[in-house]
Amino acid sequence: MEAVAKLYSRSIDCSIQVSRVMRPDDANIAGNVHGGTILKMIEEAGVIISTRHCNSRNEERCVAVLARVERTDFLSPMSIGEVAHVSAEITYTSKHSVEVQVNVMAENIIKGAKRLTNRATLWYVALSLENVDKVVDIPSIQYISPEQQEEGRKRYEAQKLDRIETKQRNEDNILPAINVGVTMKLMDEVAGIVAARHCKTNIVTASVDAINFHQKIEKGSVITVSGRMTFTSNKSMEIEVFVDVDHVLESPKGKAHAVTAFFTYVSLDKDGKALPIPMLKIEMEDEKRRFDEGRNRYLHTKAKRMAQAQKCQ
Amino acid sequence: MEAVAKLYSRSIDCSIQVSRVMRPDDANIAGNVHGGTILKMIEEAGVIISTRHCNSRNEERCVAVLARVERTDFLSPMSIGEVAHVSAEITYTSKHSVEVQVNVMAENIIKGAKRLTNRATLWYVALSLENVDKVVDIPSIQYISPEQQEEGRKRYEAQKLDRIETKQRNEDNILPAINVGVTMKLMDEVAGIVAARHCKTNIVTASVDAINFHQKIEKGSVITVSGRMTFTSNKSMEIEVFVDVDHVLESPKGKAHAVTAFFTYVSLDKDGKALPIPMLKIEMEDEKRRFDEGRNRYLHTKAKRMAQAQKCQ
Amino acid sequence: MEAVAKLYSRSIDCSIQVSRVMRPDDANIAGNVHGGTILKMIEEAGVIISTRHCNSRNEERCVAVLARVERTDFLSPMSIGEVAHVSAEITYTSKHSVEVQVNVMAENIIKGAKRLTNRATLWYVALSLENVDKVVDIPSIQYISPEQQEEGRKRYEAQKLDRIETKQRNEDNILPAINVGVTMKLMDEVAGIVAARHCKTNIVTASVDAINFHQKIEKGSVITVSGRMTFTSNKSMEIEVFVDVDHVLESPKGKAHAVTAFFTYVSLDKDGKALPIPMLKIEMEDEKRRFDEGRNRYLHTKAKRMAQAQKCQ
Repeated sequence: MEAVAKLYSRSIDCSIQVSRVMRPDDANIAGNVHGGTILKMIEEAGVIISTRHCNSRNEERCVAVLARVERTDFLSPMSIGEVAHVSAEITYTSKHSVEVQVNVMAENIIKGAKRLTNRATLWYVALSLENVDKVVDIPSIQYISPEQQEEGRKRYEAQKLDRIETKQRNEDNILPAINVGVTMKLMDEVAGIVAARHCKTNIVTASVDAINFHQKIEKGSVITVSGRMTFTSNKSMEIEVFVDVDHVLESPKGKAHAVTAFFTYVSLDKDGKALPIPMLKIEMEDEKRRFDEGRNRYLHTKAKRMAQAQKCQ
Repeated sequence: MEAVAKLYSRSIDCSIQVSRVMRPDDANIAGNVHGGTILKMIEEAGVIISTRHCNSRNEERCVAVLARVERTDFLSPMSIGEVAHVSAEITYTSKHSVEVQVNVMAENIIKGAKRLTNRATLWYVALSLENVDKVVDIPSIQYISPEQQEEGRKRYEAQKLDRIETKQRNEDNILPAINVGVTMKLMDEVAGIVAARHCKTNIVTASVDAINFHQKIEKGSVITVSGRMTFTSNKSMEIEVFVDVDHVLESPKGKAHAVTAFFTYVSLDKDGKALPIPMLKIEMEDEKRRFDEGRNRYLHTKAKRMAQAQKCQ
Repeated sequence: MEAVAKLYSRSIDCSIQVSRVMRPDDANIAGNVHGGTILKMIEEAGVIISTRHCNSRNEERCVAVLARVERTDFLSPMSIGEVAHVSAEITYTSKHSVEVQVNVMAENIIKGAKRLTNRATLWYVALSLENVDKVVDIPSIQYISPEQQEEGRKRYEAQKLDRIETKQRNEDNILPAINVGVTMKLMDEVAGIVAARHCKTNIVTASVDAINFHQKIEKGSVITVSGRMTFTSNKSMEIEVFVDVDHVLESPKGKAHAVTAFFTYVSLDKDGKALPIPMLKIEMEDEKRRFDEGRNRYLHTKAKRMAQAQKCQ
């Protein structure tokens, strides 16, 4: 009896489903929903569930703020009129962070078909509402088994390592944490423009590399998002996106890219089949170096995917 | 075994939950979420679930269109930052219509409290996608008991009667069915302006009388929404709202109010307690008649509510 | 009797009122509504009324497209929670263009006060829905007096002259006419960022110079809006805004500024009083020339305003 009660309370505390019909302004002119729209919905589900959890056993009122999104693949494009079902669940908690895993399903309510389009993993920290510079302790979730907890701990250590590396790459890595979802949507929009200019075809987001956000809340700042193509394979393009923050009302500080991220796009024909990508023209030393780095990321991801596919057989 | 399978398939087909955080632009300057925002979310949940159902056993592709919303009470105002959970379920089907019942819960994810804020009943019809003038047959749902079905049939007959009466009152009763949710949001906005002008305080929607929509789909039409106060009691105001449709691209027809509806508003002090309402000034014969009709509606609703309360004791 | 009927039909055909409550996302962080929000509402009212008029006596279905906005002054900033009432009226028609005059009132529904915040004049042309490259003839409106018609004709000639001059200045003067309202909103947003960076205070739009739009409708184009400060007086700043259009899916043409416009901003203290503006630093020859041109525009406008004030005495 008690086990059932616990399971029930867990499902209330630790999971949520957010659904909504995709509208014309969620999509490009070919009718494919922007990856950015999906990222924004994923982030909203994550904020709800982790804010709820952080306050469940805390005396101190707090709010969850996105710290990191793991690499995310877009398995199949969604269309206008389909219903996006975003379901999120808390899968691990450390002392100061919450791991949320999210599944996105697309449902065609006319045809009745449903398919998985995304799986994402997000990390949140909780900031005190009385003092937004103070990181609040996270209550632990109950694990189904010690193995589940141990798997979570490994993911936690892995992302921590990666965050330290990124921090060293972008020295002053700060992004206003208000509306991180909106920021990710803008990043995808910029990457999409770069990709469309290159191909002059219908392009869709194929994946986003891990993005880290270092919290600093500022109202009224101006965010500038820019992008450049770094690498092309036969069927994909990699675009590097930069987010710069300008604290308009304060005196100017040394500017730096606050956040950088890599988006991968593919080009689709009318039937949704991937088209070949024109090769990126390279002229400068810098471009050559970035292209090689992009190829390394491409080959690394490909190798990882093949290893996983073999493990599943 | 079979019972479980049925229950599962039913929950997929016949229910949905739509959730989202309430943002500043969903609310008035006092931070209370507009009734119109809630009505729009309710309508979206209803469209998803009934479109899905109508296509589940139909050869003909179709889309559900709102025909009627039953009288809806707003039990408690929602605030910015709270999560609105809208869950909808199909509760009855006739040959040509689907009844959807919707519950709205407000969750304060900081404080952890959850409360019911609305219960609504909506009626949809299904139009063929090939021919939008054609009403499509609705597949029947499975009822848990014959009593459940009989209760549904009674509600169906009651609303049918009321629709006929309304149709006689508003001779030419047509509203473009595209984005009915948006229209209801506008209607609430207009009613709110009328109420705020009268009280000069923080006002919130208390209830909406049944609204009927007669389908005629027109893209590019201009909708004009206007309102006037008809009645005040000690603690509430009734506002009549009119929707006129202007088919901009066609030559003008004889104009008539396409839809009329009655909204009831209350005025709240800082602690959310209802304030007394200044009495509506009446000068003309017409205003006197409308005031009396408003009082009748007010007394009728009050009597009904007391009868229900006694039944529950 | 007939006069009344005519007046009625005229008021249906030739005027419209669009009202809406100003929301937090319509305004800056100080709570002042963006000039761009107002421009967008003005344009929407203009499109409705002129599209309706063009179709009233035409066999050919058509849609009105903005060709020009005359210089517009923002007399007083609006605030969140106020209701903007935009009323538009057709005041002149030539063979191919419609003049629309718009008044914007701000109503504080709590305090009950109402004030004029803008007066604008817009020029529309009508394009055939069957062939968007075809300009359609405009049915004439009925004038109250020959004087009224003659005054309109003078305004028509004056704007025609100014459009020709602008066309010579910006060689390749093309803007996608889809969502011109959205474009004007973006232009104001960019100008506002430039102004805020310069002053680091709360800034509001004071006026916009005449803007011309040469119609070319393209879906899926990318619009880039940029701005630079050109001139500062004691209490105002002039910002030049550029709109570039990139037809992403077509092969690149020679790029040119599609539209340029001058926005004037003022800086306000907490009580809404104008603050002194730090003088613009000038280093290059180009900047010097632009500063002088800006001063000429400033002095010209000032002289014109004084002449008008004397005429009214």
